[in-house]
Amino acid sequence: MFGNALVGQSGGPTAVINSSLCGVIEECLRSKERQNASGPIGKIFGMSYGIEGFMQDMLADLGMQPFDVIERLKTTPSSALGSCRYKLKDADLPKVLTQLEKYDIRFFFLIGGNDTMDTIHRVEKYCKEQGYGLRGVGIPKTVDNDLFATDHTPGFASAARYVALSVLQAGILARDMKKVDQYVVFQTVGRSAGWLPAAAACAKSSEEDAPHIILLPERPFDRERFLAEAGEVYNKYGWVSIVCGEGVCYADGRSISDSSTNDKFGNVEFGAMAGTSAAFTLHKMIMEAFGWRGEFQVTESLQMCAADRAVQQDYDEAYACGKRAVELALAGTSGVMVTIGRESNIPYRYSLGTAPLSKVALGEKPMPAEFICNDRLFVTEKALEYLRPLVGELPRYPRI
Amino acid sequence: MFGNALVGQSGGPTAVINSSLCGVIEECLRSKERQNASGPIGKIFGMSYGIEGFMQDMLADLGMQPFDVIERLKTTPSSALGSCRYKLKDADLPKVLTQLEKYDIRFFFLIGGNDTMDTIHRVEKYCKEQGYGLRGVGIPKTVDNDLFATDHTPGFASAARYVALSVLQAGILARDMKKVDQYVVFQTVGRSAGWLPAAAACAKSSEEDAPHIILLPERPFDRERFLAEAGEVYNKYGWVSIVCGEGVCYADGRSISDSSTNDKFGNVEFGAMAGTSAAFTLHKMIMEAFGWRGEFQVTESLQMCAADRAVQQDYDEAYACGKRAVELALAGTSGVMVTIGRESNIPYRYSLGTAPLSKVALGEKPMPAEFICNDRLFVTEKALEYLRPLVGELPRYPRI
Repeated sequence: MFGNALVGQSGGPTAVINSSLCGVIEECLRSKERQNASGPIGKIFGMSYGIEGFMQDMLADLGMQPFDVIERLKTTPSSALGSCRYKLKDADLPKVLTQLEKYDIRFFFLIGGNDTMDTIHRVEKYCKEQGYGLRGVGIPKTVDNDLFATDHTPGFASAARYVALSVLQAGILARDMKKVDQYVVFQTVGRSAGWLPAAAACAKSSEEDAPHIILLPERPFDRERFLAEAGEVYNKYGWVSIVCGEGVCYADGRSISDSSTNDKFGNVEFGAMAGTSAAFTLHKMIMEAFGWRGEFQVTESLQMCAADRAVQQDYDEAYACGKRAVELALAGTSGVMVTIGRESNIPYRYSLGTAPLSKVALGEKPMPAEFICNDRLFVTEKALEYLRPLVGELPRYPRI
Repeated sequence: MFGNALVGQSGGPTAVINSSLCGVIEECLRSKERQNASGPIGKIFGMSYGIEGFMQDMLADLGMQPFDVIERLKTTPSSALGSCRYKLKDADLPKVLTQLEKYDIRFFFLIGGNDTMDTIHRVEKYCKEQGYGLRGVGIPKTVDNDLFATDHTPGFASAARYVALSVLQAGILARDMKKVDQYVVFQTVGRSAGWLPAAAACAKSSEEDAPHIILLPERPFDRERFLAEAGEVYNKYGWVSIVCGEGVCYADGRSISDSSTNDKFGNVEFGAMAGTSAAFTLHKMIMEAFGWRGEFQVTESLQMCAADRAVQQDYDEAYACGKRAVELALAGTSGVMVTIGRESNIPYRYSLGTAPLSKVALGEKPMPAEFICNDRLFVTEKALEYLRPLVGELPRYPRI
């Protein structure tokens, strides 16, 4: 099969998604070199702002970019092509096919999460039905780490390190300031998956260290239990470090950030608008219950783009996934996402594999039960064994 | 004068306050070595939890700490001795003197901000009145940079770099995600001083780069003007980056984070309890005015303790201030704070000086008028000339 290649990024960015983009571009260019410029891949187009931009002819000819720009993408945070969250409709498929034909695209790569995999899956399937030859391969990306069929997702480790570093540093500060403030609440992103709040546990090297309480969206929030544990920690150490996922819910499914849980505000719009304030709810709850002083931290997209805190292994794996996607497509594979397998924890070793897009697009990957403590609001040693090789070594500070 | 030394930390921590502590301890130890262990300084005591702990006999013998712990303090964030925000009362002074006598303390060093300088000033003055020989020297510290009589304060540069890096990285993300979200609001600490929000301007290398709007506590907040500028930026670039100081107020002095400014909530307690949510107010204001999607970021103490983002120059200056305080006390000086003078911007050079505690304790240092734009919500080139040598080089990322 001969034709042009198309690569796009969609969904929320990560610190390493451009490393995958770099892997795709460089492998396409290498394949041309290997074939003395007469290989199967002609031009390499980048979608500006994902499939949405592609339908509007927003493309960049990536082969025309200076080599050093491509190379520097490896460590550039966010989505250099521009991203979108457009949910592809069936009615869009004929337009997408028209565009693929117009630009003679035969190799199709998207870097993203579930929705993105669903997009490639449907485009690839539609092209097959319509008799248009297209090889589509997905490249995994998400800080949430909730992608099915892969041990972990590029982008997660770097966000996890941001979370762990933040909780570690703010924990030392909270300990030293306990005569003034008694708690700190740190909120992570991750929607219904608890991988990011769980990663904060890597910050801990002794019982007194932060974090003390981790609230995972996988478990229903119980106000009494939460306050009881906070009270216990306070009685032991005089300060409390709490980490919560943004998507933590009550047993009935209501988000704890929803204002309707508190009749004092009685304003449903507030809950919807705040959106990200599970941490504020907890902050308020603690103040009301104990009268302590403290603070909440909502870092939002900062944890998705902190290039200076990115994990080298994460950059490398993101790049390898992009490169592998091109190799697979050139070898005739289509309709799969590149996956990462865990070969060993100590020393850490991984391998690349594939999973059918049809499976990935539908599945989600919450934290498994064996990673979550039953007797306390925390994660298990098993979870830490999984997380530590990804997050990497963390600084340890002396104590007087 | 012969006797023991006492060193303490108070107020909010910084990434480099322990480097000052290390400077004090190591210079005390060096002075002993120089004098063949018979120098004027005997033991070196550290106050646990500031003057509050000292009055309760909470002291650590710092000379007994392993050398490597002392050395590693240089790059350990937060206040290793433990901090307090205790406002010393006149009635406490006899108790403090009793404690000084009890531990035979003749050299007194405190690392902190205005209130801390007030504490040393009053203790030193009281001792003089009571005929107790004590040399008291203050060492400046604050991320807010609002200390009078010094060009800048150790701790500020590192917090400023955290702010600038965060705004830079989140700005790239916001730009790439503009089809999904249209704005990002980043809130800094700094109370009534705008030095930290101003530092975000260092992130900018072109007109489109973040930040677009900087709201300083030094200027009254005007809703119409703010929304007009946000609308203009959006029309040009399709996204808006806003940085605000936590202490931004309306012309009548009410904080913009105060809920009483919005009759929908009508709950004064909420405003007081949120305390830190100027960013949330702006987030809500933009959503209501334009219907855009976006996020707010409240990092609080994370910007005071991010050791991995600390500026080497800041560590060095913090250490030098601690060392100089001991040298001054040994040379017979008392009742002053060590100050930093700016000798040159390119290349950056500084010098150390002193200012009387009586002056420092009372003064505050807001951003000067020449650092603040009149025609737009931003800082001037003069402000950037001041800020850039402190914040240091920032990463620059390629764009496709």
